[in-house]
Amino acid sequence: MRVLALLDGSTADPDAPLLRVDDLGLLRGDGVFETILVVDGVPRELGPHLDRLARSAAMLDLPAPDRAAFERCAQVVLDGWTGGSEMALKLVLTRGVEGGDGTPTGFALGADIAPKVLRQRAEGISAITLERGVDEGLAERAPWLLLGAKSLSYAVNMAALREAERRGAAEVVFTTSTGGVLEGPTSTAVIARGRTLVTPPATLGILPGTTQHALFRAAEREGWTTEVAPLTVQDLHESDGVFLASSVRKITRVHTLDATPLRDATPLLAELTTLYESEYPRLTPAHTAS
Amino acid sequence: MRVLALLDGSTADPDAPLLRVDDLGLLRGDGVFETILVVDGVPRELGPHLDRLARSAAMLDLPAPDRAAFERCAQVVLDGWTGGSEMALKLVLTRGVEGGDGTPTGFALGADIAPKVLRQRAEGISAITLERGVDEGLAERAPWLLLGAKSLSYAVNMAALREAERRGAAEVVFTTSTGGVLEGPTSTAVIARGRTLVTPPATLGILPGTTQHALFRAAEREGWTTEVAPLTVQDLHESDGVFLASSVRKITRVHTLDATPLRDATPLLAELTTLYESEYPRLTPAHTAS
Repeated sequence: MRVLALLDGSTADPDAPLLRVDDLGLLRGDGVFETILVVDGVPRELGPHLDRLARSAAMLDLPAPDRAAFERCAQVVLDGWTGGSEMALKLVLTRGVEGGDGTPTGFALGADIAPKVLRQRAEGISAITLERGVDEGLAERAPWLLLGAKSLSYAVNMAALREAERRGAAEVVFTTSTGGVLEGPTSTAVIARGRTLVTPPATLGILPGTTQHALFRAAEREGWTTEVAPLTVQDLHESDGVFLASSVRKITRVHTLDATPLRDATPLLAELTTLYESEYPRLTPAHTAS
Repeated sequence: MRVLALLDGSTADPDAPLLRVDDLGLLRGDGVFETILVVDGVPRELGPHLDRLARSAAMLDLPAPDRAAFERCAQVVLDGWTGGSEMALKLVLTRGVEGGDGTPTGFALGADIAPKVLRQRAEGISAITLERGVDEGLAERAPWLLLGAKSLSYAVNMAALREAERRGAAEVVFTTSTGGVLEGPTSTAVIARGRTLVTPPATLGILPGTTQHALFRAAEREGWTTEVAPLTVQDLHESDGVFLASSVRKITRVHTLDATPLRDATPLLAELTTLYESEYPRLTPAHTAS
């Protein structure tokens, strides 16, 4: 099922036309978004997602998102949801219509998690590395390239996923021209090395991961070491486990990279998933009432 | 004024909501477009624009645009236009709605040329160079980066133009990390060197310019030499004239680059404009009747 709410708090039919053709979100991919996992009616990392939406908007010189309005319209979607226990909640903000008065377009759209994603969480995935055309200093040198902003201009991310499919894989790990690890098109790369988790630094021009951050927080509490440090493709091959983390995929295991099987990280995935889920204790009715 | 026609040939109110929020053109910038100059009811370079739309669509693995449908809906816009002598005609094709049956979204939107563009045609512009994060071999090495496709994912192009404004300029010339000239965010770079016109090669991952191509065709006929060859920023400074060419801006003179005045190319602009316009003889009523 799908539930749609507009920024003014009203609900709308997601199958009905609602946007003008001259919305700059469409004509120029000029806007930002977030996708939030909701479990049993509770959005995960809503605050960090709204923070990141604001950060992306600032990178695009968009007006600051109206946080209260987004919280309200997210709640309208949650209130209207009668589907399964999990929902992907997308928040979208565009620059509004071309030549308009600057009023942004904004909405929240709740939808089921795609069956493919649920399957990949359970079975793991095969990934390929693809060059992203980004060198180490580029993001800081050239902020107009919007590296690390979650903009609506995602055509390249989608093209990379199609390239993966063409090569018989499901996912992509973007790399620098010198073999440095960046991120997935819609996910954060994380490796395990003994009792240490490592993810590449956002200064490379990648999106700071909300799910990766929650995992690291939980892992640190349980005595793991966490590092934000550059990684090479060779590091992925030599690690004890490679994972792609994102809201809807949670932590998904990469079992094969560039057609080479990686170390079996099935037990490790179970452990990391338990850690990650411990960040979100399920409320029992008794808890809710207290 | 504005006139909108949909791919089925019907007209629609451009101020009315027509698109669903889950159109992939909006959610992912996943689509392609063209902007065509129409003068006195005659679209310029319609064939090459439709060719390029098809080329961009192929780069994004979109279904081939229905050329006859686009020609028809463009004609519906032309027939409905009662505005000034010039119109910017935008053709847009998206991947359609998320999870849909693959039916693309397509439309043609006619609008007035922005006063700013008309002023810039007459007065010339100040431009800055900005790094694009692209090296010489990247486009051929990494086709998933969609370099040279005219996709709806134009947030970076818009961000570059805002950066130019921040620096007191109106336009941008994108460069490689080693100072090679690429293109403008929505235009083709052309220089004059004596009686030779030069533009950088599309193999760099830039858009093949329809207006630049028409200008070169006219110039060759009049005895100019034309070259498609790599250019450096130094070449721009040492040239007899730097121009940004695009459908709506025609050929616009760059008078200042990175705050340094360029050689005065006002007479040269007049000559090139005459050449370019000679490609499009105005039909008098007598001609029309013949």
